[in-house]
Amino acid sequence: MKGNLLYEGKAKQVFKVKDNETQLVLSYKNDATAFNGQKKASFTGKGKYNNLISAKVFEYLLEKGINSHYKRALNDTEQLVEKTTIVPIEVVVRNIAAGSITRRLGIAEKTVFASPLVELYYKKDELDDPIINDQHVFILTDATELELKQIKAIALNVNTHLKEFFTGVNLTLVDFKLEFGRDALGNIILSDEISPDTCRLWDKDTGEKMDKDVFREDTGDLLEVYDKILKRLEAVK
Amino acid sequence: MKGNLLYEGKAKQVFKVKDNETQLVLSYKNDATAFNGQKKASFTGKGKYNNLISAKVFEYLLEKGINSHYKRALNDTEQLVEKTTIVPIEVVVRNIAAGSITRRLGIAEKTVFASPLVELYYKKDELDDPIINDQHVFILTDATELELKQIKAIALNVNTHLKEFFTGVNLTLVDFKLEFGRDALGNIILSDEISPDTCRLWDKDTGEKMDKDVFREDTGDLLEVYDKILKRLEAVK
Repeated sequence: MKGNLLYEGKAKQVFKVKDNETQLVLSYKNDATAFNGQKKASFTGKGKYNNLISAKVFEYLLEKGINSHYKRALNDTEQLVEKTTIVPIEVVVRNIAAGSITRRLGIAEKTVFASPLVELYYKKDELDDPIINDQHVFILTDATELELKQIKAIALNVNTHLKEFFTGVNLTLVDFKLEFGRDALGNIILSDEISPDTCRLWDKDTGEKMDKDVFREDTGDLLEVYDKILKRLEAVK
Repeated sequence: MKGNLLYEGKAKQVFKVKDNETQLVLSYKNDATAFNGQKKASFTGKGKYNNLISAKVFEYLLEKGINSHYKRALNDTEQLVEKTTIVPIEVVVRNIAAGSITRRLGIAEKTVFASPLVELYYKKDELDDPIINDQHVFILTDATELELKQIKAIALNVNTHLKEFFTGVNLTLVDFKLEFGRDALGNIILSDEISPDTCRLWDKDTGEKMDKDVFREDTGDLLEVYDKILKRLEAVK
């Protein structure tokens, strides 16, 4: 069913689907990148973890009534998705301070936010994905006020459900990044991936960082950590 | 009337007022700094221009019903102001793209915004005054939601009046930075200074930059430019 390569990103290849203009195949690569691509490495088997974990997350969200571009996993490294036109915004939801916000705003790591903090970034590699405010969104993209409200509401809804989802496998959801697109009907829809590449997850007992920070901070074996998460998720159901 | 030095900033010294706890004397320095203090120089006479131009701006705003901490100019380089506790936010209003936004978001210089763009920055030298969103304001400062609304509304109101004020002396108001404080009663009040150090002003006929960009970009004689602005303002009334 896989057609021609349409686009290759830092973490995924995107293929056409033969005889279907509204779907795509996402093929997860083994590459890990951090700090907007300044740090790079390849881990044999990583693509499988991102694909299978992301599939489990999207399936859970669908059960909770949150639709996404995800259709189904095709094999270990590929999934079938609805074709969307990406809105060039990265939406970050933070429950606890970690990563860039600690450096940018001087907030101590582990600071718990009284309510989830939503940040918007302009998805533009050449500019290092700068943080933006609501007004910038309307200047830089064609998103409408209603769509931005919808995007933020979905992001907070995803947060509510994912906190519970990860609590079920003894992980604290520290923060995560979402992307959204428009489907063929022009509706806003959750897209991209949700995995330890795009979430910060801390073990509830040990505090161990079980996400891409292991790679960013060189503090452990990324594959081992991703394998642990997948095994925990598979043990649940 | 001037009492002890309370505080010295990059552009001003702040003195107590003898026998008056609710007022301060601002003494404008001859120093120019740019890029968060990375570029510095001193221009004999600069303090006078900032003081007298800022005084004219605050007097005009008061006539238009916008109160500020400004009371009156005491001499060429000093003004008497209401004592306020600064809210550590810098509010930038942009009518036309110039300066940092062109680099940060890749928006071409001279792009006219469909409506004035309001940006918030966290006033923190050690962090290089990072841009923030509304939610960050509530995490980083004690400003309330109502106060932030008030601050933004005042900023847009100031923009409306200052565009007209500067049009009267053949200058386009490109953008400007405001700071706010709380007075002794806890009310939000416009403070700091409004001058060619804190505004971008372009000559309407020639497009000449008549503000601190002359210093930032080494394109002319700062004192000559500031003198032109003061002379134009003095010619009006």
